Amino acid sequence: MIVVMKPGAIPQQIEHVKERIEQLDLRWHVIEGTERTVVAALGEKRDGAKQSLELCEGVEKVVAILAPYKMASTEVKREPTVVQALDLKVGGGHIGVIAGPCSVESRDQILEIAHLVKQMGGKALRGGAFKPRTSPYSFQGLKEKGLQFLAEARAQTGLAVVTEVMAPEQVELVSAYADVLQVGARNMQNYPLLEAVGASGLAVLLKRGASATMEEFLLAAEYILKTGNTKVMLCERGIRTFEDHTRFTLPLASVPYLHQTTHLPVVVDPSHGTGKASLVAPMARAAIAAGADGLIIEIHPNPEKALSDGFQALTPGAFRQMMTECRKIAAVMGMHMGQD
Amino acid sequence: MIVVMKPGAIPQQIEHVKERIEQLDLRWHVIEGTERTVVAALGEKRDGAKQSLELCEGVEKVVAILAPYKMASTEVKREPTVVQALDLKVGGGHIGVIAGPCSVESRDQILEIAHLVKQMGGKALRGGAFKPRTSPYSFQGLKEKGLQFLAEARAQTGLAVVTEVMAPEQVELVSAYADVLQVGARNMQNYPLLEAVGASGLAVLLKRGASATMEEFLLAAEYILKTGNTKVMLCERGIRTFEDHTRFTLPLASVPYLHQTTHLPVVVDPSHGTGKASLVAPMARAAIAAGADGLIIEIHPNPEKALSDGFQALTPGAFRQMMTECRKIAAVMGMHMGQD
Amino acid sequence: MIVVMKPGAIPQQIEHVKERIEQLDLRWHVIEGTERTVVAALGEKRDGAKQSLELCEGVEKVVAILAPYKMASTEVKREPTVVQALDLKVGGGHIGVIAGPCSVESRDQILEIAHLVKQMGGKALRGGAFKPRTSPYSFQGLKEKGLQFLAEARAQTGLAVVTEVMAPEQVELVSAYADVLQVGARNMQNYPLLEAVGASGLAVLLKRGASATMEEFLLAAEYILKTGNTKVMLCERGIRTFEDHTRFTLPLASVPYLHQTTHLPVVVDPSHGTGKASLVAPMARAAIAAGADGLIIEIHPNPEKALSDGFQALTPGAFRQMMTECRKIAAVMGMHMGQD
Amino acid sequence: MIVVMKPGAIPQQIEHVKERIEQLDLRWHVIEGTERTVVAALGEKRDGAKQSLELCEGVEKVVAILAPYKMASTEVKREPTVVQALDLKVGGGHIGVIAGPCSVESRDQILEIAHLVKQMGGKALRGGAFKPRTSPYSFQGLKEKGLQFLAEARAQTGLAVVTEVMAPEQVELVSAYADVLQVGARNMQNYPLLEAVGASGLAVLLKRGASATMEEFLLAAEYILKTGNTKVMLCERGIRTFEDHTRFTLPLASVPYLHQTTHLPVVVDPSHGTGKASLVAPMARAAIAAGADGLIIEIHPNPEKALSDGFQALTPGAFRQMMTECRKIAAVMGMHMGQD
Repeated sequence: MIVVMKPGAIPQQIEHVKERIEQLDLRWHVIEGTERTVVAALGEKRDGAKQSLELCEGVEKVVAILAPYKMASTEVKREPTVVQALDLKVGGGHIGVIAGPCSVESRDQILEIAHLVKQMGGKALRGGAFKPRTSPYSFQGLKEKGLQFLAEARAQTGLAVVTEVMAPEQVELVSAYADVLQVGARNMQNYPLLEAVGASGLAVLLKRGASATMEEFLLAAEYILKTGNTKVMLCERGIRTFEDHTRFTLPLASVPYLHQTTHLPVVVDPSHGTGKASLVAPMARAAIAAGADGLIIEIHPNPEKALSDGFQALTPGAFRQMMTECRKIAAVMGMHMGQD
Repeated sequence: MIVVMKPGAIPQQIEHVKERIEQLDLRWHVIEGTERTVVAALGEKRDGAKQSLELCEGVEKVVAILAPYKMASTEVKREPTVVQALDLKVGGGHIGVIAGPCSVESRDQILEIAHLVKQMGGKALRGGAFKPRTSPYSFQGLKEKGLQFLAEARAQTGLAVVTEVMAPEQVELVSAYADVLQVGARNMQNYPLLEAVGASGLAVLLKRGASATMEEFLLAAEYILKTGNTKVMLCERGIRTFEDHTRFTLPLASVPYLHQTTHLPVVVDPSHGTGKASLVAPMARAAIAAGADGLIIEIHPNPEKALSDGFQALTPGAFRQMMTECRKIAAVMGMHMGQD
Repeated sequence: MIVVMKPGAIPQQIEHVKERIEQLDLRWHVIEGTERTVVAALGEKRDGAKQSLELCEGVEKVVAILAPYKMASTEVKREPTVVQALDLKVGGGHIGVIAGPCSVESRDQILEIAHLVKQMGGKALRGGAFKPRTSPYSFQGLKEKGLQFLAEARAQTGLAVVTEVMAPEQVELVSAYADVLQVGARNMQNYPLLEAVGASGLAVLLKRGASATMEEFLLAAEYILKTGNTKVMLCERGIRTFEDHTRFTLPLASVPYLHQTTHLPVVVDPSHGTGKASLVAPMARAAIAAGADGLIIEIHPNPEKALSDGFQALTPGAFRQMMTECRKIAAVMGMHMGQD
Repeated sequence: MIVVMKPGAIPQQIEHVKERIEQLDLRWHVIEGTERTVVAALGEKRDGAKQSLELCEGVEKVVAILAPYKMASTEVKREPTVVQALDLKVGGGHIGVIAGPCSVESRDQILEIAHLVKQMGGKALRGGAFKPRTSPYSFQGLKEKGLQFLAEARAQTGLAVVTEVMAPEQVELVSAYADVLQVGARNMQNYPLLEAVGASGLAVLLKRGASATMEEFLLAAEYILKTGNTKVMLCERGIRTFEDHTRFTLPLASVPYLHQTTHLPVVVDPSHGTGKASLVAPMARAAIAAGADGLIIEIHPNPEKALSDGFQALTPGAFRQMMTECRKIAAVMGMHMGQD
């Protein structure tokens, strides 16, 4: 840490900072600049130290030097992590496509869609059984019934099942049916949930919170990694900004940024990231071109009749075309995607 | 709802929209404009209808007319709700002040602060026993031990205890010690938690999520109200924006806006809302002047040694001065605040 | 427009709204809903009408139905506009690449870079002669001298010159040297400037303001189009959000959105859009995959010694590689890009 | 500046950074930390140095220590600047109220409003003669005619005239009539305009751009101060965020923050800052409680018929009540406001 003193800081204040640094089991190093003095605090311990020094009199600000996440960092592990669940492979040159409806609505619906996904080269089936809905008056999901339908779809197609879990006490039940546990954007900082999905040992798809910084996103992943579970996929699904022509703003620069920062693979969700079916395919292509390791796409045989989020679901035909285009871009990128 | 057709929409598309409206158990009403046609959909049912119509061919957009929350709305209940817990009264002309440390750190610390809060006119003691921390390497709270210290502080001072609960399975334990359950900003859309705190029957302090709109905030409150628990305080604690000179941006216009929209009382948290001790008192004064029904303030006898968030904690002296200033502004506003 | 009345609106208030609509030379149409009444206002005139109706007593809100831009809209002109300046072609299947340094720093520098750009398939040379700088203490550009160097570079290479103009009184001077006038993000709503560049008759590269909505962006273009100058390229260069790992957030969904909304071509600036050289190539690829009609890229033979924005400039080698990758993706997209 | 090296930085890279620092006429100072090395760069020169060092190989990031603005800083001048124009006094314990319509619409309108403002204790009259409008189809102002009406209103009432100037070439004309030149939010970074209003020698009301940071805001002020004109009032008028229940988000913490950072006075604009007449008075009160040195308020005798922004204008009655409330809060704050 670098402690920047105020311009008029007096010697006693600098002394106090040095003492405080020692109490924190760190070493200090004073640098006298032209207009102000700076004190470096060196050593391993960090928690609470920054704020403590920020409060010393005569201190203007404290600048942290080290990233606070460790296990997620490329500094700890350089080679990319590949997350696998059944035939789904995400990372290390493999682009995995997860597709399905927003919600599991019926046995027939999910089986029909699963076969479509399989046929078009998807490797995992998404579908919400427990649905977090903004309004308590909206459809809340089929719950365990929905999980059973998903498992049946897996039995018929071999697709891995990706589904959301909303609370620690649901983890056991959902784990009995799912191959990948999804943590939704609203729950990215639900720490008891992160610890519970970590402890499940299953692969986890962690969605970025709508106002989470990259540091917060990686620290959320760190909660899972700390349980010993390294099968974590990061999912960029858009952030909340002032833009009103899309549901969220999908910032694809997070893909190459994360590849430089972490070894964990990055999946992009252009369905939630735009909230408009007509923008999904262009952003799926762009995600692959930016280097994404996976896509998660909402599809529905009849979006007009979907019980949730139909406005952002692709029809089977549109999904087929998207897959064809994305595969060509994946080839340019030297990545494997589906079928082959 | 108002369904706006595209400029070149053909009669068959308008017919299809009308049929779809009927299938949704709504009535339609067509208006031919100069440049395009608009179809109003009238009636009670709304869930899923908007998106379904948005997907019909030839439709440009669908505009919702009614607010989706009901029980929180001033349309349902005009007179302000007053939330009470022991001597804490929030709403209806009463400004309740909740103060205390970010985290309960030790028995001595919380007892010392509790007496300070009491002496300066606060009516409730805040203090985290279960702490949601961005980093898994940060101090996570004293857990049940911390709750016991809070209860002891209440026994000595009579202050109501306000403390955060992070997961549904913690509700029972925390309810055994607390008078008010706090739902943190990160958990504003943790629906199982909202239902669990609602079912506890205790008063709830619901913090606004850092990127939640007013509609999402009120719908989160609606999840609690729907359990039959009407003791809900809304807490504005700042939103995430591009501003970097404060930790969050504290948008006080939400106070008068909420007073026009809901009967629930509004508490302001200038400590998290600014993240800087030197900005807390001015924003506390501004909150009262904007009409806030309560304040929640972080204080610490020695902020430099706090285990969390010390940089935004007021010293006892600064808190005393803030209370004096706020009381004068409350008097101008014709509001009761503390001691009297 | 749709005027939504408050739940308790009384007949006199509705009458007043109807009268007001008539005074505004519009026609009214009343729709009685289950919970509230809605009055449609039909006709051509719009300016000021919305706000006037919003202020009538008993009115909750007024919803506009028509987009406020006209000449930029695909409703007015369906076929894509192709903007051409010398060999630069942007739109209608042609991807034009504009590249060069942030600032013109010297004759040698700009000539060296111009030859590089030409050699690698760029069709236009960017370079700032008048530089808008956040700080008055930063390098402000070589001014007319810089323009002369740009013209000399054009004479040697045939590249079109793209350079920024900052004030209406500079338009005449800059037009004497430039082929394309750039309006910077800070000036997107500088209306006298928009009118002056429109009147110049030259092609215009209009950058999106850092907090401009799509509607504001298109209305800024409309100011130029209204002068009769239709050679307008829209440039997405990133928006300001809470993200702090990039300089701006580059929201590529604006590319397909604009293609659905306007006939004007869309250029993407991944240099300013990310502010980090290491993220430029992935986002350039992603832009092409999203359908962009052009790229504007900062390059510098020695970024470490650039007088401005070196941190986001590509080296010649990195630019060459980016061009190779982008050309492959353009081929997949069926677009022409450079050399051929 | 603090240059943070990457974890694996090799000695040659550190040597190169040291050389580069010397080339930049700065001194270096190396600090070896536990996990990485940090090099401090000490001395006066800063422009371009940061980015140049950021580009050296092995460098992770460069952290600036000094604020880039000088003349605006409290480090240069501690006592608050009081800006005066006729009877308007802003700063140093004086709260100045500027009020009037969004646009000057007619002689009668502006004279009527001027007398109202005078009577209720306002000290300056606002009114747009040159109007920056988002749409080219909206009313653009009465131009010089409007300025003449404003001057006549001043002659009758003694109020100072505050009006916007949109381009450098308008400064001479507008200066012939105005007492305070307003630079609008859209033009906050229009540098030729900042220099031109500075050179006019008149007092300047500089509005914060909708996505400007505090640093950018102060650097814009610095452009004016650098001309030798110190009569600069900073105006907080709201920022663009995801919030959709107000037109902008009004972040009042900027008031105390600016008071700690600069000697320039701070005016708040709750009319644009909220965009809703019903929220203006609460936010005006809050602004005073937060320490604002002035208010700028839109009023209209008949908001329903205003040619622009009527939805945020107060009626004369509402303005009177707001003034009464604000005066009481000003008294609590120990500030002078109006009449006395």
